[in-house]
Amino acid sequence: MKLLDTIDGPGKLHHLTRKQLTQLCGELRARIIETVSQTGGHLASSLGVVELTVALHSVLNTPVDKLIWDVGHQAYAHKLLTGRRERFHTLRQYKGISGFPARHESVYDPFTVGHSSTSISAALGYALARDGLNLDYNVVAVVGDGALTGGLAFEALNHAGHLNTQLMVVLNDNEMSIARNVGAMSQYLTRLRTDPTLSRTREEMEQLLGRVPAIGDSMLRVTDRMKKLVKQLVVPGMLFEELGFTYVGPVDGHDVALMQTVFRDGLRRKGPVLIHVITQKGKGYGPSEANPEFYHGTGPLRDSEAGEPVPSYSQVFGREMVSLAKKNDRLVAITAAMPDGTGLSQFKELYPQRFFDVGIAEQHAVTLAAGLAAGGLRPVVAVYSTFLQRAFDQIIHDVCLPQLPVVFAVDRAGLVGEDGPTHHGVFDLSYLRMIPNLQIMAPKDSQELAEMLELALEREACTAIRYPRGPVHDKAFRELGVDDCSPVEFGRAQIIKQGSDLTFVAVGSMTAAALEAAAELENRGFDVGVINARWVKPIDQETILETAAQTRRIITLEENVLAGGFGSAVMEILEKAGLLSQVQVNCIGVPDRFVEHGDSAVLLKDLGLDARGIIQRALPLIQYSKAAVQL
Amino acid sequence: MKLLDTIDGPGKLHHLTRKQLTQLCGELRARIIETVSQTGGHLASSLGVVELTVALHSVLNTPVDKLIWDVGHQAYAHKLLTGRRERFHTLRQYKGISGFPARHESVYDPFTVGHSSTSISAALGYALARDGLNLDYNVVAVVGDGALTGGLAFEALNHAGHLNTQLMVVLNDNEMSIARNVGAMSQYLTRLRTDPTLSRTREEMEQLLGRVPAIGDSMLRVTDRMKKLVKQLVVPGMLFEELGFTYVGPVDGHDVALMQTVFRDGLRRKGPVLIHVITQKGKGYGPSEANPEFYHGTGPLRDSEAGEPVPSYSQVFGREMVSLAKKNDRLVAITAAMPDGTGLSQFKELYPQRFFDVGIAEQHAVTLAAGLAAGGLRPVVAVYSTFLQRAFDQIIHDVCLPQLPVVFAVDRAGLVGEDGPTHHGVFDLSYLRMIPNLQIMAPKDSQELAEMLELALEREACTAIRYPRGPVHDKAFRELGVDDCSPVEFGRAQIIKQGSDLTFVAVGSMTAAALEAAAELENRGFDVGVINARWVKPIDQETILETAAQTRRIITLEENVLAGGFGSAVMEILEKAGLLSQVQVNCIGVPDRFVEHGDSAVLLKDLGLDARGIIQRALPLIQYSKAAVQL
Repeated sequence: MKLLDTIDGPGKLHHLTRKQLTQLCGELRARIIETVSQTGGHLASSLGVVELTVALHSVLNTPVDKLIWDVGHQAYAHKLLTGRRERFHTLRQYKGISGFPARHESVYDPFTVGHSSTSISAALGYALARDGLNLDYNVVAVVGDGALTGGLAFEALNHAGHLNTQLMVVLNDNEMSIARNVGAMSQYLTRLRTDPTLSRTREEMEQLLGRVPAIGDSMLRVTDRMKKLVKQLVVPGMLFEELGFTYVGPVDGHDVALMQTVFRDGLRRKGPVLIHVITQKGKGYGPSEANPEFYHGTGPLRDSEAGEPVPSYSQVFGREMVSLAKKNDRLVAITAAMPDGTGLSQFKELYPQRFFDVGIAEQHAVTLAAGLAAGGLRPVVAVYSTFLQRAFDQIIHDVCLPQLPVVFAVDRAGLVGEDGPTHHGVFDLSYLRMIPNLQIMAPKDSQELAEMLELALEREACTAIRYPRGPVHDKAFRELGVDDCSPVEFGRAQIIKQGSDLTFVAVGSMTAAALEAAAELENRGFDVGVINARWVKPIDQETILETAAQTRRIITLEENVLAGGFGSAVMEILEKAGLLSQVQVNCIGVPDRFVEHGDSAVLLKDLGLDARGIIQRALPLIQYSKAAVQL
Repeated sequence: MKLLDTIDGPGKLHHLTRKQLTQLCGELRARIIETVSQTGGHLASSLGVVELTVALHSVLNTPVDKLIWDVGHQAYAHKLLTGRRERFHTLRQYKGISGFPARHESVYDPFTVGHSSTSISAALGYALARDGLNLDYNVVAVVGDGALTGGLAFEALNHAGHLNTQLMVVLNDNEMSIARNVGAMSQYLTRLRTDPTLSRTREEMEQLLGRVPAIGDSMLRVTDRMKKLVKQLVVPGMLFEELGFTYVGPVDGHDVALMQTVFRDGLRRKGPVLIHVITQKGKGYGPSEANPEFYHGTGPLRDSEAGEPVPSYSQVFGREMVSLAKKNDRLVAITAAMPDGTGLSQFKELYPQRFFDVGIAEQHAVTLAAGLAAGGLRPVVAVYSTFLQRAFDQIIHDVCLPQLPVVFAVDRAGLVGEDGPTHHGVFDLSYLRMIPNLQIMAPKDSQELAEMLELALEREACTAIRYPRGPVHDKAFRELGVDDCSPVEFGRAQIIKQGSDLTFVAVGSMTAAALEAAAELENRGFDVGVINARWVKPIDQETILETAAQTRRIITLEENVLAGGFGSAVMEILEKAGLLSQVQVNCIGVPDRFVEHGDSAVLLKDLGLDARGIIQRALPLIQYSKAAVQL
């Protein structure tokens, strides 16, 4: 019987001995490695905070006390200790427990999370609510040094330091955001961590001053004055102290007993406290310690399957960026802490001077790109669809209003699978389409992605190219017999096949499914056309209006919410052309709810976004029509 | 002949004597006061930076050097000195010069702006582009202490300090953002400004140490060690130094000669420099110095017109918040630096403990609200539509995904007039409508705004209420004979009048114009219905589908972009109901381009959003149909 298996709630930790807590850490680590090698997940982050989690839960009284994890991918030990041990093997699986803290999942998760840098704001909100309602509980935010590069975290520090509300922020410093950390703040933390001068300074100087002989009044005044100045100024963690926080640290984040003492002390203080804890990402698992970026988010750790490896869209993007960089020395790339995830590792290696990793700071990534473009360079901002939401205003205000030539490579657009509702990229077509001067493309396969990127750079306009997570669809098209290499042209859709009964107009990732559905419908005796939209904006009015006039039945398909999406764009041009009442339009896309986590294929099927679902939607439309014609 | 009238470009300033520069400042100030009292504008900010502007232009070589103003409302003196003197009287007027720097307006405006906290990112972009292209020019960002509370500014500081690119940031510290400044950063700046200890510390301590008698080896070691520590640690502006900037200051921002010296020195340094300049907002204009918040953005300074003053929607909102706060002690209000603009001044006075001004930090405002709501309070976030764009991701991720009861009071929704394209609130219906779990209302008059706010708080759901800038439309409805007080109900539109030829379905501010157009069309013999949508989400399907079935002709009206807006929502429900091909739908709204600045009435007319424009769009639809019927 393992100790872990006796822990039904975090209250149990209050009664464990130091030795038992250490044992528990080992068991937690083993369980996390065991499970994640089956399910995939954020291994390195969660391994790094095992002792931190145990220490926190052994001094806190959750769920009365509020423990808020920033980003939340490091909360596996927290989940194991808070009543989710027996369901832990369902981690990130369809209908299983989430990979992130979620309010609907547990009372031990006071704040739903997935994106970075929200925890201090949320914790401050709880703390102010506590004070306003005259309640009595502790609020703790655990934030990584990477998350601290996000402006939102700074906004919250600035506000919390000013209000002087009781609040504990644990800075989990592992020198990484997802990739190796960047930014002056990170350098500063490194100095705090590594420079014994700095961390001992206050104490040391007071000792030194005590040894200055007092000769006469003048000397007394000098030493008094200096003592005062030293107290005022020479404190490690000055930066946080300046912002109104009491800084404590750095503390070894793998020493449970030490952390317990420090946390207990921190919780007793009035006003905001920042505890600087040093952890090692991937701690306790050799491969992960050695390569934490690789193990940041992993799939199941199986032997790689046989056969030709299929590249992902991200890899194709990265390859194409390298190839374009050779020809265009004004091309520069920007990532927000995702050099690997976005496929830019090779670009970074080959062109370090033309590569900018801004940290977890999407707003700055976009406005920096605007500045670079205004200054004559040609920036490509590679960012996940869900994270680009952070820079919505900057896209409008800094890029599209002045029409600066910035290209947005919008990765992970559509459903992303196991990361779930915080990470699905299902809003971008809607939130980008409304912005004047922005052009939007979506490739159906690797070839199109490459061509679109080249075209976007040639045209020097504000452009977004959105493409999905995962392997390219090239094989599906080969199997469906589509071998059309018509080049991507500005504002032109690709007519893959004509059809008299119905036309599918599909965006990017939905093209393969549309084609598959069309083939099946053909087997059933219908003549179905398929258009690959390629351009969401400007939309190919000519092709779509012509098709509408011919087939009078259109089904739009997109891996995006229906509200304001591509389907609406098609209706808008039909309305403008006065053709709306002459065409039957059906829109297939993501419905108006947050989509859960799980395997993407399962989710797509659930939402009716696979070939079968498409056929089910199409049949009534064409059967009814055929019947009407036959009458 | 005034000296100012001889200045055709900033190069002229290089040749003026100190006395002439002082004279020029006086003339600039007079010209700004004179013009803004006619045109309205951002008086206090622009008066505060007259000397700063003159000093910068007298040492910089613009437009080769890039001078980037944050927010940009303080750039009037800059505009007067950079070739826009003769057009300055057209400031903020339709077809006149913009109230903000704009790339399309002048080569002296290297970055288009209007929102806060973008300048350091933009400047860093220019600086990196300069280095990448082997060019040679200076880049200077001028950022207010208020703008520094925005997370974007911090993201940029963090990145710039890390890269060590040559770049000068002038921190224009006037202790105000728009309202009196908040946040720990602001307190820190105040300490720098007011504590002579702090700003003299380094020098002083070195002097003091020089006076410590050296007694024996031990003492020598002590003093040496301390000297080193002092150098390392006790530098004013430590916070910026920690972030990798060289800090210089504080400097009197009304002393041109001093600033010239400091700026010249700053431009010679390698790496990023931050110059801390102290200015007085409203300097040189008595009423504005005394009440800079009131004079932040003013209308023309005329005698108030006779007659009953008409309240603005913001005032109605503020009044209602006070009234609701009495009944509901969980109600709290949040603003991002706009206590006055959003109408919350009285709430702030009466309930200081329940009022949170977070500074210019919209992201934090929203995530803080999520935390407050999770903690049991009922926050209302009052923010302008255009600035809420900054918090798009937080609305999705922190509020709507976990369904926390936060109310967004979206002020300045629709066209805002003279502030122009950076400030028009014409995207919110589209960017909010796509978000699951979010309810959206828009009032047609003051009574509805009050009821909607009350209903939103009762329902405890994620809710946005969007209302326009300026006076309430109550009088228009009284004049049009609408005296219907049907209470606002969940998800229900208000049928103001039925009509058999056509139905207008109007959102909020467009209802009055729709009614006016309907009255005129009735005079011409048509029977036109008017529906006040009230709810954009959930949209009143029943009423709209019934109306559609009856009149078969619908025109939607909204002060929002057409792409993804309310009109699209109507088409989406018709599509879902399979009625799309049986109804003629026309959508009236803001087209797919950025709308210029100018008087709102003029802009609305331009866009066909006034009664006349609506009639012009309606006539072909009903005339044609009537003709068809008569055939």
